[in-house]
Order: sequence, then structure tokens, then C-alpha cells
Amino acid sequence: MRQDLAMLKSGRSQEESRRSNLGELLRHVHLEGSLSRSALAERMGLNRSTIMALTAELTGAGLVREELPRDTGRAGRPSLVVRPETDRFYVLAFDVRVDRLVAARVGLGGKVLDRREAVRQRAGADLDDVVGVLAGFARELCGQADSVCVGIGAAYCGMIRPGDGMVRFGPDMGWVDQAFGTELGQRLGLGLPVAVGNEAHLGALAEHERGVGVGYQNLIYLHGDVGVGGGIIVGGKLLDGDGGYGCELGHMIVNPYDGRPCGCGSRGCLEAEVGERALLDAAGRSAELVGHDGIRAVVDAAEEGDEAAREALRRIGDWLGIGVANLINLFNPGMVIFGGMLPDIYRGSAAQVHSRVAANVLVISREAVQLRTAGLGDDATLIGAAELAFAELLASPLDALAHSALR
Amino acid sequence: MRQDLAMLKSGRSQEESRRSNLGELLRHVHLEGSLSRSALAERMGLNRSTIMALTAELTGAGLVREELPRDTGRAGRPSLVVRPETDRFYVLAFDVRVDRLVAARVGLGGKVLDRREAVRQRAGADLDDVVGVLAGFARELCGQADSVCVGIGAAYCGMIRPGDGMVRFGPDMGWVDQAFGTELGQRLGLGLPVAVGNEAHLGALAEHERGVGVGYQNLIYLHGDVGVGGGIIVGGKLLDGDGGYGCELGHMIVNPYDGRPCGCGSRGCLEAEVGERALLDAAGRSAELVGHDGIRAVVDAAEEGDEAAREALRRIGDWLGIGVANLINLFNPGMVIFGGMLPDIYRGSAAQVHSRVAANVLVISREAVQLRTAGLGDDATLIGAAELAFAELLASPLDALAHSALR
Repeated sequence: MRQDLAMLKSGRSQEESRRSNLGELLRHVHLEGSLSRSALAERMGLNRSTIMALTAELTGAGLVREELPRDTGRAGRPSLVVRPETDRFYVLAFDVRVDRLVAARVGLGGKVLDRREAVRQRAGADLDDVVGVLAGFARELCGQADSVCVGIGAAYCGMIRPGDGMVRFGPDMGWVDQAFGTELGQRLGLGLPVAVGNEAHLGALAEHERGVGVGYQNLIYLHGDVGVGGGIIVGGKLLDGDGGYGCELGHMIVNPYDGRPCGCGSRGCLEAEVGERALLDAAGRSAELVGHDGIRAVVDAAEEGDEAAREALRRIGDWLGIGVANLINLFNPGMVIFGGMLPDIYRGSAAQVHSRVAANVLVISREAVQLRTAGLGDDATLIGAAELAFAELLASPLDALAHSALR
Repeated sequence: MRQDLAMLKSGRSQEESRRSNLGELLRHVHLEGSLSRSALAERMGLNRSTIMALTAELTGAGLVREELPRDTGRAGRPSLVVRPETDRFYVLAFDVRVDRLVAARVGLGGKVLDRREAVRQRAGADLDDVVGVLAGFARELCGQADSVCVGIGAAYCGMIRPGDGMVRFGPDMGWVDQAFGTELGQRLGLGLPVAVGNEAHLGALAEHERGVGVGYQNLIYLHGDVGVGGGIIVGGKLLDGDGGYGCELGHMIVNPYDGRPCGCGSRGCLEAEVGERALLDAAGRSAELVGHDGIRAVVDAAEEGDEAAREALRRIGDWLGIGVANLINLFNPGMVIFGGMLPDIYRGSAAQVHSRVAANVLVISREAVQLRTAGLGDDATLIGAAELAFAELLASPLDALAHSALR
């Protein structure tokens, strides 16, 4: 009886298990660069002959190769390591930021092979213009490559509908319900869909997989720009909520009765109190530099003793600390990561942030959390877009290649 | 090659798949009461002969029975339905609340078969006293039953360490690092461990599985008592964070510069602004009724036109609304559920809560969310404790019974 029951499902299970093992092995070498068979066997809980067979399948498809490791410093015959074929398979990754457009060709293994960047005006931008610039970059990036594009991903500074990459709400560029993912896919003409994600969501994924958050199953990534976005990893997965619109920590009200107006129409939101505008206003520098340069100028001035800059950072740091404290109480995370322009603000206001965390976080959660700045720096969102683009290949490598070949 | 690879894992997969299917079938009838084979086949994505075989195994173990449905109102021979053996297998569920101790015998299928309750003084309580009362209740509940106890669960109003049920922080009873789960298990002497959870976490699970939240993969449960706790379901699972101490929404700072003192040592926390004490103080009723009765008296008075009570509810409702708005922006949930004493407060302040949600939640998340009161009423936490106690049986029914028999 038991045997019969089990067999009824085993046909499906065997095939599923093989696919998922192929994907898992490829994911390991994609994220870690090169791994010996025995390291792979240990990480995947499989025996070495199974690892060998899986590696042979991936090698046959050209996705990985086995080779001698670089000098191991040990005597004796070293064992082979498995490496991703970085130059042969790549994705296109795009990052639509408030102040610039970025495009990159990123190889299997996560290396940025080539990139293009354009500074853009901050005023409202036309969908058609943005897509046009990105598609132009893509032609330059793909044209010279004797290799296969296996996916396309894009980070956008706004609320994104999963599935089709519609920008539902992008206040920084004045976009509402703009079919960004679909338009970009058509303009690229590569026969591949464009996976679009919110920039902070993707920054969180990137820091979780390749940045300071590696190994942390629960982490919070705050991304500062004109606004403040968030990506929150819960149990190893991005918190997306019912429609994919979760993590909007920038619209947490921290200053309910005396708050600054926010781009969302409300007042006293975290992003209104700690965003670029708030800091520059508080430091009395409204008419000068903006963006990262403007923020850095205030932080540098504070370090050199400018009292107005110091006071501005104290105020902003206190609001940031309230937001961070609330998030730690809610999520009991292992790490909070500051990305975008927030590393600069945190550098200038760490004392205030720590003070709020000490005063307002329950001690059990406080003892367990680390505050860090993004390991991938400004590229966190771009790298996240690349990882989004690799997702299909890593889910089922041979099927994804078969689909690519048919296009 | 492919076949070989698959076979290497199939031995484990077959046995695992059988266990998980047995558990899943039992979970369906446990949660839904009775289901036909065809309904089970549809829910589980298996064919009817597999369902028949699984049902036969569970019937053999005495966990379910097949019988004719009650009058179907249709002509012809009705098909059999599978029901849980409610009277034969049960769990003990305990609920340690601020104002009372509750114990219940809950049958497979979720029916409360018998219960005991004691009102308790609000002043600090001794671990030994609490455990003594609960163990006394358990003897009364178990003594008369010709049936098998398959698990023990307890809800506690504080921060609980998973694994051993240590109360790390229970401010309402003045407990710090009290070995509640271990002590209760020893005193009961049933040879079973006690699974302990935070009351609001368990309330959330109960509402998700049996209350108004059934079918919602993302929901927020706020539990009001002297304090305000939370249980948040993300992607169908309880958000627990790194150590199991997540969801502390009661310590979200909503009133940063003019806040009331909170039991956690901070000021302006949500629970300090909307808890029982805040409402009674605001309504000028400090010396009168406390607890649910005190809250209801204020809400009733407001409905009858008492201006002080109305003003108090407006104030509390505004703070509650800020907290709820922040949570909706963060979690993009399908539902927010008010439990404990919050249904009464919400009844008296819905206009303020809705007004804050309308003003402060991003429109995309706002359109998708419902605000509701707990479907299980005051029993949500107790039912959650029972579900926690059933978890081992539902994970692997036959193994769990084998373990029970060995004790």
C-alpha cells in the first residue's frame, strides 16, 4: 500500500527534483563563483556522484565548466572546481533612478561585464524617452557580444505591478500606470520579457544574495533617494504582500502632528522627514547642490564643524532612528542595511540613530541586530535587477535555455 | 542519466511525499470538518484512488472515519465524506491572559470539548501559582476522557522563546526569563512537551486558519489587552523574525515627542496610546471598571452621547489609525483584524481609524485591504494555542501517534 501511494507521485517528483537540483547547483556557483564538488555536495546535501552527474548536465549545456583551481597553496593534486561560464551567458540589467539611467550586461556569476550610464534631468520624464535611452544602451551592450542573453531585469523607483512591470505609481518621475516593462521589452526586440521590480526591493535582494546581508534570513534594506524605499527579507524571501506593493517603509508616519508634506499627499512620512529635501532644507542649503553631492556636502560640512549641518543631521538622524526602531520591533531582523544616499546620512547621524534604537527597541530584538551600510554601494539596485533577470535560468536551467533557443 | 539522477533521490521523496500527503489530508478535514473524497482530491491535486488509499491509512489509525453526509437534499446515493475523529484525539490548550487563566480540551477538528476558566488578580503572578492552576484544570479536563492527548499548547501574553517556551519578557505579569513551558510540561506529567506561543501570534494563526482571515495569505492581527500585541501573516506564514520575537507592533512609536510612558520603558508606543489605560484616562474613568468591562463602558457611554467618552475614543482612534496605516503600507495585506479588546475600541472609533487609513495609506494598498474584527472573538488566542498543539500530529500523523503510544 505504502509503496503504491508513493509511486503515484514519484514520476513527477523525480523530474521536479532533478530540475530543482540543476537550478540549485547553478545558483551556488553563480553566487559563489567557484566551488569544488565536495563543497557542492555538502551545501546541497547530495552525494558526490550525484553532483558529478548534475555538473555533467550543466557542462553539456555550456553553463559551467570544471577546471583546476587557482593556486591552492597546498601540496598534492587539487580537486576540480565548478565555475559559471561568465562570458557566454548574460542578462541585461537596467536601473531607472531619480537622477540617472543605468544599463549593464551582467554575466552568469554576477560580474558586470559592461555598462552605460546617463545623468538625467529630475523633472518629469516621458516613458518613451526613458525606454529609448535604455534600448540604445542595450544595442551597444549586446552588439559586440558573442554570447547569449538569458534574461532582462529592471529596477524602477516606484510601485511596480508584478507580472507585467507596469509602473503603478512613480511620484519622482510623475508616472501613474505606465506600461514600462512591456514597452521596454518591445523596444528591445530580443523576444524576452522584462522583469521589473521596485528599486528598494531589488536592492534588498542583492544585499541578501551578494552584499552584507548574505546568510541573514531576516533583514531590512532602506534605500534613500529623493524618497525612501524599502525592501524587507522575511524568512529568506522578499516581503511583497498581496499585490507586490509591500515594504513601503518610507510612508511610515513618524511625525504625525508637525510633519513635512510628502510626495504621497500625506504629511510626516519617514521619507518626508529624512529624504534629501528635508536634510538640505534643515541645513539651509536649499539652493545649492542636490542629490548625492548635496547630501555629501552637508555631511562633510558637519564633520568639519558646521553647526547648522550638524543640527540638521541630528534632526534627520532622530527621525531615521524612530523609523529604524519601529522596523526592528516589527521584524526582529538580523541586520538593517542603509543604501542609496542613506549611508552618507547614517555616517553623519549614527549617534542619533543608535540612541533611538537603544531607547525604543525591545532589548531582545536590539541585542540581535546589526546596523550596516550597503555592501554593494550604489550598484545594489542594478545588481538586484540582474538577479531578477537570472531568476528563470536558475529555476530550471535547461528549460530556460531551450526556451531561449526557440526565440 | 536523467533517470539515474532522479532515482538517487526518489527513495526519500516517496516516503516524504506520503507523510506529507497524510498530514495534508488530515489538516484539510481538521480545518474544514468534513470533506468528500472528490473535494479532497481537488484540494490536494491528487487522484481519487490516492485519496482513498490515504484515507484508508488514516482510518486504520483511528484519526478519521468515512460516513454518509447529513441530508444532502439531493436525490441519488450520496458519496461518503471524511470526518475527523473529534472525540478520540484531543489537545490541551491553555491561555494565560492578563485577567484570566483559561484551559480547554480541544478535539481533532477544532471543537472545544470542555473548558475551565479562572479570573485572576492583575498584580504580579508567580510562575508556580499559574502553572499550578493550569495543571489543576488539566487534571479535570483529562480525567474523564476515554481518548488520547496528542499535544499541548499555550498562549502567553509576552515574548516567548521558541523551542522551550521560556517567557523572555512578560511585562503584564512581571515575568523575565521564566521557564513557563518546561515547568508546565513537568507539572502536567503527560510525557508531552508544551508548545508555547505569544498570544497575538497565536491569535493571528487562529484567525488565519479558522476565523475571518481564512484564505488571506497576508494579514495583520492586532490584539488589545492591557498592552497591544500583534501577529502578522506574510505569504501564509507567521512573521517570526530571527529569534521568534517579531510582530511587536505595540511598540511602534506613533507619538514621538509627547507620548505616554509605556511598559517597555519607552514613550509614545502604540500600546501606550491606545491601550486600556490610555482610553480610561482619556475618558476620566481611571478609578472605575478596568479590563473589557471598563472599555465597553466607555464605548457604550460614547454611543449614548457622553462627550468625554467620545473625545477619548476620537483620540485613541486617531493613534490606532496611524498604527494601522503604517502597517498597511509596510505589509500590503488583504486584511487587518482587531482582536482582544480592540473590537470594542474599533466600534467606538472606526471613523478616526478609517480617516487615517484614507489619508496615510498609499492608494494601491488601501484599495485592497479590509478592516475586520476577530471572527473567533475572545477565543482566538486559545484556539491558536490548540492549533499549535496539533501541529506535530498534522505534520506527520502516523509518526506522531507512534510517538504518543511510546510515552
